[in-house]
Amino acid sequence: MKFKAPRLYFIQALPDPRKIEVDRSLVIFDRILLRNRKVRSWLRKCPHKYSVKAGESLKDIKNFPGHIEKILKATGPMQKGPLQIIAVGGGSVGDFAGFVASILKRGVDLVHIPSTWLSAIDSAHGGKTALNVSQIKNQIGSFHQAREIYLVQSLLFLQPEERIQEALGEAVKIALISGGDLWKKFQQVKRWNRQVCWKLLKQMIQAKYDIVKKDPLETKGLRHVLNLGHTMGHVFESAQHIPHGRAVLLGLRFSWEWSLYRGMVKPSTQAEFEQGRIYKAFPTVDQHVKILKGLKNPQRALLADKKRAKSGKIRFIFFVQSGRVLVHEVSVWEICDEIQRQIREQSS
Amino acid sequence: MKFKAPRLYFIQALPDPRKIEVDRSLVIFDRILLRNRKVRSWLRKCPHKYSVKAGESLKDIKNFPGHIEKILKATGPMQKGPLQIIAVGGGSVGDFAGFVASILKRGVDLVHIPSTWLSAIDSAHGGKTALNVSQIKNQIGSFHQAREIYLVQSLLFLQPEERIQEALGEAVKIALISGGDLWKKFQQVKRWNRQVCWKLLKQMIQAKYDIVKKDPLETKGLRHVLNLGHTMGHVFESAQHIPHGRAVLLGLRFSWEWSLYRGMVKPSTQAEFEQGRIYKAFPTVDQHVKILKGLKNPQRALLADKKRAKSGKIRFIFFVQSGRVLVHEVSVWEICDEIQRQIREQSS
Repeated sequence: MKFKAPRLYFIQALPDPRKIEVDRSLVIFDRILLRNRKVRSWLRKCPHKYSVKAGESLKDIKNFPGHIEKILKATGPMQKGPLQIIAVGGGSVGDFAGFVASILKRGVDLVHIPSTWLSAIDSAHGGKTALNVSQIKNQIGSFHQAREIYLVQSLLFLQPEERIQEALGEAVKIALISGGDLWKKFQQVKRWNRQVCWKLLKQMIQAKYDIVKKDPLETKGLRHVLNLGHTMGHVFESAQHIPHGRAVLLGLRFSWEWSLYRGMVKPSTQAEFEQGRIYKAFPTVDQHVKILKGLKNPQRALLADKKRAKSGKIRFIFFVQSGRVLVHEVSVWEICDEIQRQIREQSS
Repeated sequence: MKFKAPRLYFIQALPDPRKIEVDRSLVIFDRILLRNRKVRSWLRKCPHKYSVKAGESLKDIKNFPGHIEKILKATGPMQKGPLQIIAVGGGSVGDFAGFVASILKRGVDLVHIPSTWLSAIDSAHGGKTALNVSQIKNQIGSFHQAREIYLVQSLLFLQPEERIQEALGEAVKIALISGGDLWKKFQQVKRWNRQVCWKLLKQMIQAKYDIVKKDPLETKGLRHVLNLGHTMGHVFESAQHIPHGRAVLLGLRFSWEWSLYRGMVKPSTQAEFEQGRIYKAFPTVDQHVKILKGLKNPQRALLADKKRAKSGKIRFIFFVQSGRVLVHEVSVWEICDEIQRQIREQSS
């Protein structure tokens, strides 16, 4: 399949509703955005819309029949040909709206306008959509690339300053995998804040597409590297209800410690990394051990992992150096052993 | 997107379970098939299975969350890498299982073993999957090509002889669109029965793939011709609860009458067609008028039609001659007018 990257627009204010063809679009938006006067007035110009409450319950398959019935009613009046879904919100809204777009009338166009840093950096890109089943994340879903993605500075800056911390995990991940100039810029960052994130946004997104375009449907194994920090990240998220951004940071810590233990990281890389300012933003050893100790049944979440190889093993992503990670197949039990080892080693 | 046609197998008995890798497969099957001893014993060799009751309620989105929860439980024990869904059943089972395959873990392999003539000729081929929303058919779905399709004579012959009538609509449709040798063979058919259908099956299926491969995702308009008889067929089906096969025959009659009225059919073609034996299997004028008169609100079903053009009009398929149909954009109101005209003309 030939990969068609979405058109990206980095703009200051929400796009002109006519330009994005709101007449033939259903806008699915996070209702929390109604609190802002400018967004409210922009939404008033969109004739067909569906408001949702962001969060994991939006992605629960149990609630999906009710949503899709209402969505079909809302799209009913649009008789003027091919439908389009415009998603305005963060990760859960984008995952949900993207899934709807992929199956409504067997697939309609999709436009993303991410409203959170996490979605602007990561989840709006790459075409993954998903719903949860029985509280297990992303058990069903699809690959459905957006046609256009609008990165809107004023929308992203509506979030309180502290939300930028949630984005650090995905930001560090993509910088580490990408290496080169992006990583150098990251090492020079004095303080991770909104201005810095907005400045690096284009380059972070481009780094993700450089990987996605080689393996859009995740069939060649090339896209697995993007899972750095996510195998355990998802465990922390589902078993401990830790928000995605922070869970990924914890997952990166777990992967870093395991990579060191396996002797995969060169001492010079270790020194460079641990002395960098970004490392200071990582969860401390104490915080990490506390979370690991709290894991009751990591096997269950690990067995639900979608990144399993033919062997039944899990593709785990290890660090080597910036710009270089390694995908190794490990068993669920090896991961459980490593959890115990890290608890022992780091507690002492 | 490069189209990869499924591998087709025309065989006498159900395939060797090992050959189709039942160990890594979830078999989704129509529970009515359990009545047969041979199918029962074949299913016993499949370690992971999920039985369903065929019919439209299987395709109702309202029931989907319950199904997918049980399906995930049933696939849980399969830790040995990529999953596969094997669908054993007719159209509704194939539509449902195909949809599940397209979204489970963002897409797993699919194998079809159609058990009805309609699915063997038509619905198992072409990659369309679908569910219904608010009693409106196929409002959500996906394109997901099967990897392999097994046409099993003994399985198809388990159906009572009279079920073959249901397949006539799709069979005539594909023969008309294809024309040439297939149409000639159809014109020579003395009596439409199971032996004839089995004999022509490979050629009918091939004729469908000849069209599907030019437009696998229905984006170029080339695939629309397969909708011959289906615009009104779906109206009869949803508004009058007429089985799909018979609804398509009625839809072909409607399209035939409209094409004649519009002067699209050459008199020689009309004579050839109406004198052929196949024409005698069509619903009579009286039957047709009775159904048309019974339509309460055809607009609603027509407005839900997925084959709408950019203009908001519906792409309607007209007859010209065997091997040649025409796609014209018509409004919902033109169709409603034509319904009234056919009632008037044919009643007189």
